[in-house]
Order: sequence, then C-alpha cells, then structure tokens
Amino acid sequence: MAVTKAEIRTGAYYDSVILMQLQRALAALSGVLDAGVVMGTGANKDILAQSGLLAPEAQAAAADDLVIVVRAQDGAAAQAALSQVDTLLTQRRRGIEQDYLPKSLESAAEMLPEAQWVMISVPGRYAAGVARQALRLGKNVFLYSDNVALDDERLIKQAAAENGLLVMGPDCGTAIVNGIGLGFANKVRRGPIGLVAASGTGLQQVSSRIHQLGSGLTHALGTGGRDLSEAVGAVTAHQALDLLGRDPESRVIVLISKPPAPQVADELLSAARSAAKPVVVDFIGYSPRARQVDNLCYASTFDEAAALAIELASQAEGTAKDEEPIRRTAAEPFAAGQRYLRGLFSGGTLAYEAQLLLQDYVPAIYSNAPLNKEHRLANSMASQEHTIVDLGEDEFTVGRLHPMMDNDLRIRRLQQEAEDPEVAVLLLDVVLGYGAHPDPASDLAPAIARVRTSAQEAGRHLEVIAVVVGTDEDPQGLSAQVQQLQAAGAQVETSNDEAVRRVGRLLRSLNPAATIRTLKPVDLGVLHQPLAAINVGLESFTASLVAQGAPVIQVDWRPPAGGNERLAAILERMKR
Amino acid sequence: MAVTKAEIRTGAYYDSVILMQLQRALAALSGVLDAGVVMGTGANKDILAQSGLLAPEAQAAAADDLVIVVRAQDGAAAQAALSQVDTLLTQRRRGIEQDYLPKSLESAAEMLPEAQWVMISVPGRYAAGVARQALRLGKNVFLYSDNVALDDERLIKQAAAENGLLVMGPDCGTAIVNGIGLGFANKVRRGPIGLVAASGTGLQQVSSRIHQLGSGLTHALGTGGRDLSEAVGAVTAHQALDLLGRDPESRVIVLISKPPAPQVADELLSAARSAAKPVVVDFIGYSPRARQVDNLCYASTFDEAAALAIELASQAEGTAKDEEPIRRTAAEPFAAGQRYLRGLFSGGTLAYEAQLLLQDYVPAIYSNAPLNKEHRLANSMASQEHTIVDLGEDEFTVGRLHPMMDNDLRIRRLQQEAEDPEVAVLLLDVVLGYGAHPDPASDLAPAIARVRTSAQEAGRHLEVIAVVVGTDEDPQGLSAQVQQLQAAGAQVETSNDEAVRRVGRLLRSLNPAATIRTLKPVDLGVLHQPLAAINVGLESFTASLVAQGAPVIQVDWRPPAGGNERLAAILERMKR
Repeated sequence: MAVTKAEIRTGAYYDSVILMQLQRALAALSGVLDAGVVMGTGANKDILAQSGLLAPEAQAAAADDLVIVVRAQDGAAAQAALSQVDTLLTQRRRGIEQDYLPKSLESAAEMLPEAQWVMISVPGRYAAGVARQALRLGKNVFLYSDNVALDDERLIKQAAAENGLLVMGPDCGTAIVNGIGLGFANKVRRGPIGLVAASGTGLQQVSSRIHQLGSGLTHALGTGGRDLSEAVGAVTAHQALDLLGRDPESRVIVLISKPPAPQVADELLSAARSAAKPVVVDFIGYSPRARQVDNLCYASTFDEAAALAIELASQAEGTAKDEEPIRRTAAEPFAAGQRYLRGLFSGGTLAYEAQLLLQDYVPAIYSNAPLNKEHRLANSMASQEHTIVDLGEDEFTVGRLHPMMDNDLRIRRLQQEAEDPEVAVLLLDVVLGYGAHPDPASDLAPAIARVRTSAQEAGRHLEVIAVVVGTDEDPQGLSAQVQQLQAAGAQVETSNDEAVRRVGRLLRSLNPAATIRTLKPVDLGVLHQPLAAINVGLESFTASLVAQGAPVIQVDWRPPAGGNERLAAILERMKR
Repeated sequence: MAVTKAEIRTGAYYDSVILMQLQRALAALSGVLDAGVVMGTGANKDILAQSGLLAPEAQAAAADDLVIVVRAQDGAAAQAALSQVDTLLTQRRRGIEQDYLPKSLESAAEMLPEAQWVMISVPGRYAAGVARQALRLGKNVFLYSDNVALDDERLIKQAAAENGLLVMGPDCGTAIVNGIGLGFANKVRRGPIGLVAASGTGLQQVSSRIHQLGSGLTHALGTGGRDLSEAVGAVTAHQALDLLGRDPESRVIVLISKPPAPQVADELLSAARSAAKPVVVDFIGYSPRARQVDNLCYASTFDEAAALAIELASQAEGTAKDEEPIRRTAAEPFAAGQRYLRGLFSGGTLAYEAQLLLQDYVPAIYSNAPLNKEHRLANSMASQEHTIVDLGEDEFTVGRLHPMMDNDLRIRRLQQEAEDPEVAVLLLDVVLGYGAHPDPASDLAPAIARVRTSAQEAGRHLEVIAVVVGTDEDPQGLSAQVQQLQAAGAQVETSNDEAVRRVGRLLRSLNPAATIRTLKPVDLGVLHQPLAAINVGLESFTASLVAQGAPVIQVDWRPPAGGNERLAAILERMKR
C-alpha cells in the first residue's frame, strides 16, 4: 500500500523555481508516486489534500514552513526519497551563467552602472524593501512580486514619482521596454503603438494580437493591477501615459485596465484626452457612453483594442491635423463671460442623446427631461448654466401643438436665451417630414439671424448649431432647409451625434477643465537607451534578458536578517 | 401704452391646430402686438407670463379653460381683436378636402373597410376610449396622443396583443408602414432595414441617416416611449420584433429605445437573439458589455446605428450561413447531464475578460476572482456549475511558481474537473513568451489527451478549448504550440475574445434559456397590404396621408358627452 511521508523545515528560504525543481526531482525517484514541495499556506495545504498528499505532519505546518511530502510505494521508498532532499537541493543546476553573483544591489549597480532598471521577484513581504533600495540608487523598478502591502505600494510610488522614476508593479507580470521583454513578455515586432497596462495578460494578449495582425509596439509599460485603485491613484499609469505621450515614435497609445475607481478613471481619461495622439481605452467591462470622444476610442475586448490601435496608427497623422484648427480657434470670437449652452429641442430623444454625449465634455447639463433628477431644472421656463430643454415634453403640449408643427414657443425661448450674456452656444433640432411644419426654416432662420445680430450689437458672439433631421425627398426638402438656416448664420449638421460633438468641443474650449496634476516627468532616456537591468529574485528572468541580448546582473539575494522579519524591519528603518 | 386683455372660455374644446391658427390670426390684426391662445395649464400660464401676456383674468384660468390673450397698442385695439374671436374660429379653412366627415369611428370604418389602422391624436384624456373603440373594430392603432394614463396603456396593449393587433403609442410620434409615413415621418427610400423604436425622433434620425447614407427601410414601427417600462412590459416592441423577424424583406432589424427596465431589456434582447437575422440595438445610454453578441450589434448613437445597419444589411446573407452549423451541431456529442464549463486560467485578466463576455451567454459564472462577490467560489479548490479559476491569484502563488511557468497545479485541476460528469467544456489559456514555461504544450497536450480519452471511455465528450497568447517570434513558437494542442484534440484560438465566444455559444446550446413568452402573432398582412387609415384628431395627419396617396377618412371627432368627463366615463364603462 502507498505510504505518504512529510518533512517540515521551519524558516527555510528557497525561491520557488528551486521548490519546483525539488518537487520534480523527488517525483522522478524510483518507487515515488507523487511529491509536493510548497510553503505551508492554507491554500497550498488544500492543494496537497486534493492530491492525497496532506500527511498529518504537513497539516500542522505554518505558512512560513517549507513542506516536503512524498507518496511512495512503501515506507522505505518514501524515507529514501526524503533523505535525498539536501543532496538534490545542492545538486540543482543554476539557470544562468554568471561568474560572480553580487550579494547586494549596491555592488550589482557598481558592476553594471548603465542599468536603469531593477527587476524584483522576491517573496512579497521582502519586495518593498528591495524596491526602496533600488529607488535610493536612482533606478526604475519592475516589481514582479505579488502579496505586497497596499500601503507599501502607495509610499513607494509616491517616492518614485517625486524623483522622476517609474515603478511598474507590484504584481506586474510583464513589460516591453525598448524592445526588451521584462517578466513574461512576448516577442513583438517594433511598431507605432505604445501600451500602458494594469493587467499583465491583457498586455500580452493585446501585444500578441497587434503582432499577429501585422503591426508592432514601441513600448509596453505595466503598472500592476492595483495602480488604478483609489489608494494608489494611478501614479504609474499617469507617468506612463505622459512618457508615451512625449515619445514621438508612439503614434497611438493603448490603455488597458480592469475598471478603475471612478475618480481615478476620470483623472486618467482627462490626462489621456490632453495627449496629442489617439488613445485606445479598454477598461475591461467599463461601459463608456460613446465609442469615441475626440482622441479617445473605447474598445470592449482586447481583440478590439488591438484592431482599433492598428487602424488608428495608420490614420494617426491625418486625424491630428483635422482636430487642431477647431480647438485653437474656437474660443476667439466670444466675449468674456460667454460660456454656456442652451439647447432647444423639439425631439425628446434627440435631446436625450445630446445630454448623454455632452457628459463627456461638460460636468453637468440641466434639463426639464434630465438624465438624472439632480439635474432637473427648478423651473422649465428658466435655464441655468448648460441647459437642454425638450419642448416636446407633455408639460408643453397640453392644448398646444407639438413644436415640430409650431415654432412659436421655441422662437420666444430662443430670444430669451440669446439675451443671457453668459450664453455662447444655441443648439436646435429641426425635424422635417410628413406631419411636421411645412417650412420650419422660414420661421426659425429669421429668428436666428435676429438674435445673432442683437448679440453682435451687444459685443457678443452667438454660435448657433442646428441639426436638421430629414431627407432630400421630404416635402420640405433637406437642402433647401439647410441653406436657409446657413444663410441665417447657423452651423448645420444632419447628424445629431456630429452636431452635439461640435457643441461639446466648443464648450470644452470655453470651459477648460481644472488642470490635471503634474508629476516630475520621467526622462525619455529610460525608453530610448538600450535596456540594462539588475535582477533580484527568479533567475529565469535573468536568463530571459540574456536570451534577448540585454546586459543583466543577477543578485544572490537572501532574506534580510536570515529571514527574521522583526530584525529585518529594524534594519530597514535604520536605512531610511 | 400697450394694453393686455384676456378672455376665458370654460369647457370649450378646439383641437390645437385651431388654437394655433386663432393665435396667428389675432396677432396679425391691426394694432395687435402679440397674442396667446392656450389651455390654462400651469406651464402654459408660465409661458404667457414670459411673453408678458399673463393678464390677471388669465392667471385665474383652470387647466380645462381656453385662454385667449391679446396685447395691443391700446384698449380699443385689444377689445376689437377679442370681439373677432368667433368670426375667426368659423372662418378658419379646413386643411383637408373630404365631402362628408363621419361623426363616429364605426361609420368611418364602413366608409373605408380596407383601413387596417386608426390614427388617434385627440387630447390624452379621451385617447384611451377611442383606442378601445378601434380595437373593438379589429383595427390596429397608431396612438399619437400623449398624457394617456399608464394603466390605460397597459390594458389597451394587453387587449390588442390577445387579438393579434398592434398599438403603436401612446405618445408615438412616427411610423412608416409599407412606405407610408404616419404622424411625423420622413420620406425614406425603400430598402432592407426594419426599425422598431420607442423613440420618435430616434426613429426619424436613424431612418433619415439610413436614407442619407444611401440605403432604405422596409418598415419603421413605433412603440411609444413607455412601452419598454416594467409596467407595460414591451408588448408592442415584442410584437414588432416578431413581425419584422418574420418579414422576409427586412434583412436587418434596428431596435431603438431609451434604456429599458433591466428585466424588460433582458427579455427583449433574448427575443432579439432568437431572430434569424442581425439586430442592431441602440438603447441610448445603455452600456452593453460587448459590441457584438452573436446576431446582436450594439450602437451607442443614432448615427452609428444607421451605419451599422447598412453594413450588416450588405453582409446579411453571408453571416447567417456562418453561424448556422455551430448552432445546429453543438450539443450532439455530449452525454445527458453534461452542461458546465470549467475554465482554468493562468492569466488573471484573461479570466476576467472571459467572465465578462460569458455574462451574455449564461446566467452565472463562479470564480475565485469573480466579477461580483455573489459569484465567489466558497472554496477555490472546488468548482461549482460554470466556474472559471484564476490560478495566478495570490492565494495560489505563495511559495509556488506562477502557472505560466509551472503547469503542475493546472494539470491536477484539469484531471479533477474532467472527472465531473456534469462538465462539458474545459477552457485553458496558454501564455507564451520570454519568462514563461519553455514548452507549455508539452505538459498540457498529454494531459488534455488523457482526460479526453478517459471521458470517452466513460461515454462522455469533453470539448477542450484553448487560447494561445503569443507570436511566431516567441521562443516557444506560436504555431508549434498550437499544433501540439490541436493534436491532443483541443480547439485552439489565438484571441481570448474568440475562444470565449466559442465557449459561450456552446454553453448556450447546452443550457437553453427558458422559453420566451409567445404572443398571438400579428398578421404580416398589416405590413404588406397597401396602407389605409382612419384619422381621429389632428387634420394635418389626414392631409399628410392624402399627400402620400394613401386612402384615409377623417372623423369629425368631438369629446364624448360634450366634454363632460364623468358622463363620458359612464358611457365608456357601459360599452365594455
């Protein structure tokens, strides 16, 4: 009958590659059926139990204990296997060829002074200490380790940002810097797309798809999964966006994350919108209100993010040129104090779509038919700040013709809004077709011309934007209506979407958002100089840099104070 | 000095076209500066006040009172204007030419027996009564009137549905049936796209854009804005979807609404997914999880809905053929009771995206890293129903290599899941690249082959779907890994999106949704026979049918019981 035997080693440290190698070596011994070599955490004991490996001694192990279990054909074979553990541990082959392994980061830094990066994959409880050392040496950090305290992450990133250094991670699985993959990284063609990702496999999936679809990357920067939490405040994501924004080779940026905290998302999207290049956003499962807002394009899957980025990269130069003139000239003709929109709609759903789209441009739109009740007009007859009135609402149509048939009410309101010195933009819909007014422009165009002239006489400029809904076969004739309105000085669109976005861009230039916080910029050299790194932790990461031809030094790291955490904490405090 | 004078007429009924005409005629009289003719509702009195027309007598008027106000150069001119009101009312020109106007719906129906439709635009409080009369005559209803009680809407639609009749509205501004526009409607080219809309101007904007972009419509059916509320339950939308689904000329359907009640949205989307043609959904401001789910495509603006519909119409036949074989054959090889998915991921965000996408296919996915906590696995080691495990979560990686480097844990779990007789589908990710396992398929492929063989021996079929993330330049080589996995019997994709949707379709065929309710189908003849209608209310709607060449009879409608609502209610009850 099979026999299971275990050995517990208290306070012993081996990196997890070594544990895996030991487990395989034990399992391969003659007479051995299965083996498990793990730290004694609850989850690991559950896993041992599933495989029938949870011997009674193992059950008692603590999370810091190394548990070695063997199931063998008989007691003798099990015992023989366990007795070979020390031999197997000393026999194991190094995965890398390096004559001398420095014991400290400091010596490693002296050996490879051009190293801008320190890669860290030691157990989580030691990782923050190593990261602080790296930052003190002026190095950027790639922090693979997980199980790092949130508060440590916050403090480390703050310290890094103050010194213009990047900390990718903790729990950052992957990055590609100047063509060299850190951690887990695919070999991806160089190309025009830069990535910022709070998601390791998200970054890998998108970068692989970009390669598969024929394009390539400049750099792919990881942030760690918690960077976009409220506590951390997306410090790394902001730095990375800023870096890629300044990098002339990155023509399109892709930003990937699980849905961030709302406040953090707002700030990050605001930063992304001030980038002078297209940004594809895949906040996985985040529900944008529109697929595109100026230079932001939303994707809902990794696949789509990759495809969109490639498409945008091929158009990148044209788009940037198109946008520029609108932004620069928009605010010019207006008088000081002119800043608000008044939209007067006859179509309820057009008014609704307009409010929805404008959420991406201004913080609040008031209405008698608002998106949410906190933005309901106290009095439908009196606009406040940015307002969109639905004149087809029931309150206006009792014993009165619908505004698509009768423009009387709208013209009176147009006059009233135009007299408000804070109003800059008037937005109207004009719905053609059977049943509607036989010639609405003949009513509206003179009113538009009148209010624009009055405003001009008062030293103000009124921008009137109209969306005409209709076809060239409608009884009123689409182009005849458009011409009348244009002759009166209105800007005319036939798509509500386009008309409203035009209004939105104008409002944004008249109501600039609060300035976004500025961090000390990270030097672009970190992207453009050939990558060199110091590795602390998993040797396989050093091996992979070697395979990619990048200079790297492996540190022969041991837990500080021999794994005695209290002592280690005291030592760490003394260094600060 | 200008003088304002008012006259109040209690309990007088005139339709709102007449009121507008009277107001214009008064304003045009010599010496008159402005005029207002409205029912005395609060909103209308506010509007009069804004224009300086709220004379003291008008202030006291009730909602049912007709208020006539004139502002003139002097008292004499004002008085002279008011004294002409009766003359102006009798002088007004009819907008239509019809020798004899029947007083009742019944007589109108006898005059035009081929009329399938009754159009109703009488004041809201009378509209439900007229609609019931129309349904009793076996007519479909286009109900333009607003201010109709919600409960009336519910009851009328229920009665209609039981008899296979359609009620578009209340508050339905527009529809196009067999080329003829009802209410407000644009003249739109005939073409391959059918519309269902709970939004009047949404329907007009989308149909106009479809025309502007060169395509056209079969039919555009309105439902009224409240149809998709929980109280009404989208009765009309379901009928309309079903009708267009059966209409061979409608190759693509567009469904437009403000965001519906969640339960209503689920049912409607479920009905849309069982349509054998593409359905474009624009629930304005609704945030879909993905842009496309099988035959559903989500649009976020009217503009996009129009563009998408045109694109899909041009591809419509090809798509339908592609989807068919998967759906038909999927469930065949499985044993009874096999129905669940077990996904074993090494990539956290891939696991997350998979859960997100699968929400559109199955009601719940359990996980150790779930989308929401109610779907958290009680024990990460034990799957339940549909489960996706993220093996890279911190709980599994303390003192253990990441599953991208070490497949031991995943292979043990694969075995465990494969033995569960309720499991039908296994989903794995395989992430290649630097830092990852040098040849993951060499570990995983034999395990996959083994579990598939064991299952087969037990009379079961296991579908194993793998997504391989990587490039042809990765050290492991993408195609070599794919081939190894395929040789072991796995279905392989390189996009997580595609792999997960493949799983989703399979799960849907193994776990069919509860049957959706079936209504008595509306006869397709209502769409295909030449439109003929009876109009009750605004004469301009009759005029517009005449202009379109459709047979129409205008009813000379008066409020029942001379506007005495209590008496009218008694009469209505007697008829039921």
